[in-house]
Amino acid sequence: MKKIIHAVPNFSDGRREEVIAEVIKPFLNTPGVKLMGHFPDPDFNRTVIEALGEPAPLKKALMEMTEASVRLIDMNKQSGDHPRIGAQDTIPIFPLQNITLDECKEFIEEIAVDIHKKFNLPVYFSGENARCEERKALGFIRKGQYEGLKEVVHTDERKPDIGERKLHPSAGAIICSAGIKPLVAFNVILDSNRLDIAKKIAKSVRGPSGGFSTVRAVGLLFEDRDQVCVSMNMFDFEKTPLYRTYEFIKREAARYGIGTAGTELVGTLRQEALVSVAEYFLQLEDFDRGQIIENHMIG
Amino acid sequence: MKKIIHAVPNFSDGRREEVIAEVIKPFLNTPGVKLMGHFPDPDFNRTVIEALGEPAPLKKALMEMTEASVRLIDMNKQSGDHPRIGAQDTIPIFPLQNITLDECKEFIEEIAVDIHKKFNLPVYFSGENARCEERKALGFIRKGQYEGLKEVVHTDERKPDIGERKLHPSAGAIICSAGIKPLVAFNVILDSNRLDIAKKIAKSVRGPSGGFSTVRAVGLLFEDRDQVCVSMNMFDFEKTPLYRTYEFIKREAARYGIGTAGTELVGTLRQEALVSVAEYFLQLEDFDRGQIIENHMIG
Repeated sequence: MKKIIHAVPNFSDGRREEVIAEVIKPFLNTPGVKLMGHFPDPDFNRTVIEALGEPAPLKKALMEMTEASVRLIDMNKQSGDHPRIGAQDTIPIFPLQNITLDECKEFIEEIAVDIHKKFNLPVYFSGENARCEERKALGFIRKGQYEGLKEVVHTDERKPDIGERKLHPSAGAIICSAGIKPLVAFNVILDSNRLDIAKKIAKSVRGPSGGFSTVRAVGLLFEDRDQVCVSMNMFDFEKTPLYRTYEFIKREAARYGIGTAGTELVGTLRQEALVSVAEYFLQLEDFDRGQIIENHMIG
Repeated sequence: MKKIIHAVPNFSDGRREEVIAEVIKPFLNTPGVKLMGHFPDPDFNRTVIEALGEPAPLKKALMEMTEASVRLIDMNKQSGDHPRIGAQDTIPIFPLQNITLDECKEFIEEIAVDIHKKFNLPVYFSGENARCEERKALGFIRKGQYEGLKEVVHTDERKPDIGERKLHPSAGAIICSAGIKPLVAFNVILDSNRLDIAKKIAKSVRGPSGGFSTVRAVGLLFEDRDQVCVSMNMFDFEKTPLYRTYEFIKREAARYGIGTAGTELVGTLRQEALVSVAEYFLQLEDFDRGQIIENHMIG
């Protein structure tokens, strides 16, 4: 069975079609690598790439992608609604098949060293590669964003993990990480336009304010449908499955006499995230994942 | 993308380990073919094989399997609880990837001709290959089973579709078919030991007595757990999804004050049969199957 890594790189352009096409190109042209999708967001001015690949060709594609981002995106001119510190802002990877987290950690360290060497980009490590507790999540690393980081990058607290204590003059810096599994972005839409209620429920479901420890959530208004939404990042769909947050939100909303209008899954997710939902609602006993025919077609 | 066929051959031994090992061996030894599982049932005295393969190697494996069944199983001595007319009783196949139903129909016709030529087995066609309406399902073809068929095989009504009007002296006959999709075997277990209620609910859910047209069902007692079960064969999980029969049975059982204790899926099924369940219960909107990471790993 082949070793396969899942990569979800984010770069800081979600508006210029020709730039986006150039940055994603390596994932289309490299045998052994597959582009599952790319999701440009003009408001965020940022594009998420979803890709799979065997280690060697994936490394090649990630290097070429970074070369294109560094060449085409000038952080001194870039702006958007999403926090960022560099042109090729993040490269998070996850083990997918026949590869361990440790191997992925090593893989991304090698890429980070090469990126610094070739493009003179300073590197921050997060996730399982973080050098200290506070760099595990992105919030602290991104504090002040590109503009703010430029001012404090020389301090002990904010210095890069690889490279000198200064940013690349146009491409800023990059965050590299390996993690055990990618987050699932799950929106539960309420049959109501009361944003205050969506915010209250978001607060109740997210870990830091007393909810599920693996969940982060905000309340949002979807203007086009005049409905509010509890928008979640679920960081561990095994410890906290989708059905649990769904049922929880349904119950909390019922307290206000509000029903759930629908849900959305944004981006990709593992089959298991949905199989566990079916298993729960059907009260399925002793279900072996080998019973799914398609699981025998993966090689 | 490779052409892949799903085959679910049944042969008439579920007791003798050495016979079973010999009959399934071609699926273990043939490159381009994958054995997903095999399920011997000693009471039925019958084994179900679940396999996948590209057409040419799959044909090779199916021929070798049939050779072993014909050589090792004597229908004059065989007995069991499951209806059967021959040693290699059935070969049903289904298109799985990049292949049409018509191609599968042609594929199984070729195999049937070869089986008759090589082993002198008479062949009946069922499913989409049936030569007349009444041979589409297995009931009519199997009426009287091996012993009874021997007496009537010379009649116009019961004569084989390929071969003379007589059975193979030890191996009986074989039923070959292609179909659009395999059935899903789904058991809903009730928190009760009232077999009369399970039978009533089975009657209400199955097509012939007024229920779902794609569903067949019986009520059974599971003695080991002292609970009854509505045991279904669901012939089209897309037209009649799993969640619909589950919710229906739950509702019917509630009328007697009985809850559902659990469910079981027997054998293999398509991923879609479970994804549609998750989609339903989560009220999921616009979910693209390409969002499932594993679906990009199938080649």
